[in-house]
Amino acid sequence: MNGVSGGAAEPGELTLEGLRQRLVEFAAARRWEPYHTPKNLAAALSVEAGELLEIFQWLTPEQAAAVMSDPERAHRVRDEIADVLAYLVQFCTAVGVDPLEALAAKIERNEHRFPVPDEGADVNPDVD
Amino acid sequence: MNGVSGGAAEPGELTLEGLRQRLVEFAAARRWEPYHTPKNLAAALSVEAGELLEIFQWLTPEQAAAVMSDPERAHRVRDEIADVLAYLVQFCTAVGVDPLEALAAKIERNEHRFPVPDEGADVNPDVD
Amino acid sequence: MNGVSGGAAEPGELTLEGLRQRLVEFAAARRWEPYHTPKNLAAALSVEAGELLEIFQWLTPEQAAAVMSDPERAHRVRDEIADVLAYLVQFCTAVGVDPLEALAAKIERNEHRFPVPDEGADVNPDVD
Amino acid sequence: MNGVSGGAAEPGELTLEGLRQRLVEFAAARRWEPYHTPKNLAAALSVEAGELLEIFQWLTPEQAAAVMSDPERAHRVRDEIADVLAYLVQFCTAVGVDPLEALAAKIERNEHRFPVPDEGADVNPDVD
Repeated sequence: MNGVSGGAAEPGELTLEGLRQRLVEFAAARRWEPYHTPKNLAAALSVEAGELLEIFQWLTPEQAAAVMSDPERAHRVRDEIADVLAYLVQFCTAVGVDPLEALAAKIERNEHRFPVPDEGADVNPDVD
Repeated sequence: MNGVSGGAAEPGELTLEGLRQRLVEFAAARRWEPYHTPKNLAAALSVEAGELLEIFQWLTPEQAAAVMSDPERAHRVRDEIADVLAYLVQFCTAVGVDPLEALAAKIERNEHRFPVPDEGADVNPDVD
Repeated sequence: MNGVSGGAAEPGELTLEGLRQRLVEFAAARRWEPYHTPKNLAAALSVEAGELLEIFQWLTPEQAAAVMSDPERAHRVRDEIADVLAYLVQFCTAVGVDPLEALAAKIERNEHRFPVPDEGADVNPDVD
Repeated sequence: MNGVSGGAAEPGELTLEGLRQRLVEFAAARRWEPYHTPKNLAAALSVEAGELLEIFQWLTPEQAAAVMSDPERAHRVRDEIADVLAYLVQFCTAVGVDPLEALAAKIERNEHRFPVPDEGADVNPDVD
């Protein structure tokens, strides 16, 4: 019921729902569910997003643009992306929200809220 | 090339890759790409994760567990989930990483790093 | 006992200890102490630091450098600085740490950890 | 001019202004000023606040309340407090704001915004 849209993941196929199920089993096998409250998971998500930002905090725009050509930094970036996504998916499971549906609904709202600007108009990317 | 695994999204189906493409078009139509650098997107992701955490910061464990039964809070939760996922997907596009592959690889690593504990062993959910 | 070093604040003088005492009285008068647990205050501190970062997330380096010449942005900056400092001081009160002593001790450690570089050496500001 | 109120710190006395001056000298001696832009420092502040929160993310309320009786955790807490305060002070220096004045002004505003409640009234600590 709390699953990601699209129903059962087919074996071997990489889908958000398939990964979600693996994360649920992973936490259950290690008896981590009591720690996985919505509040704790929201904190952990925020902590991991901070760790991703940490990679960039002192980089110049040029260094930041080339972050993936440094193998050690590239590994850290992939690792932190995985952590953020893992906690987001686990948070969504804890509160019973399908993240893909939530994002689809938000894109619809933003399409009304931020109409496509006229040529030459000033742009301002404040989406939240 | 920077797409999410699974190739082209089928029309009408809700997939991370389908939403990613809509976000790319959304930003392009509004000429926001110059702002969507890896560093800015990592900052925006962290900011939105903070906004999700804000909903929970003063809640008791009981209130946090019931967060989705308050319609106004439930709406905020869905909205912030969408924002976090949107910036994560846009960040991944900017650095050319497939978030599903990154998460699958991390789960593999964690399965080795955190073996399933014996019955009665102490548990400690420090995954990062 | 949990106070900031330097002992009692003199009347009319602006000190961290004087502000700390006002924050303690402010929270007590509103019966907010039960919410001011170390964990909640650490979350609130992180949320407010995110709100400060939000002001800068889409700004170019030039815009960011001139942030205080925009009166509305300057007001937000001052407001978020105050929020971060307030939660930091309240967190320190909750755990019984003097923030000035903690910072003085850290500066000592960093003076050993990051020796002054030779002329022409490469610099890398990773202090943490 | 960007100093913390109260003017020159007396030698040997532990004040925010004294620590601020040491941080300025510390960064200057290591030639880190070019990295210490307002945007980078706001990001670093947010990252460090996340590291403080990380200590608490999986702790129960009881464990969190006793955090300082674990020597290793207590050390981490003091260390992260120092990092948050250091980046806050350096951010304030970069934007020319006195953090003590900013906090004093905010407390005044909040005293009007959140009047002391009547006996028995419901309380809600949403200060921001």
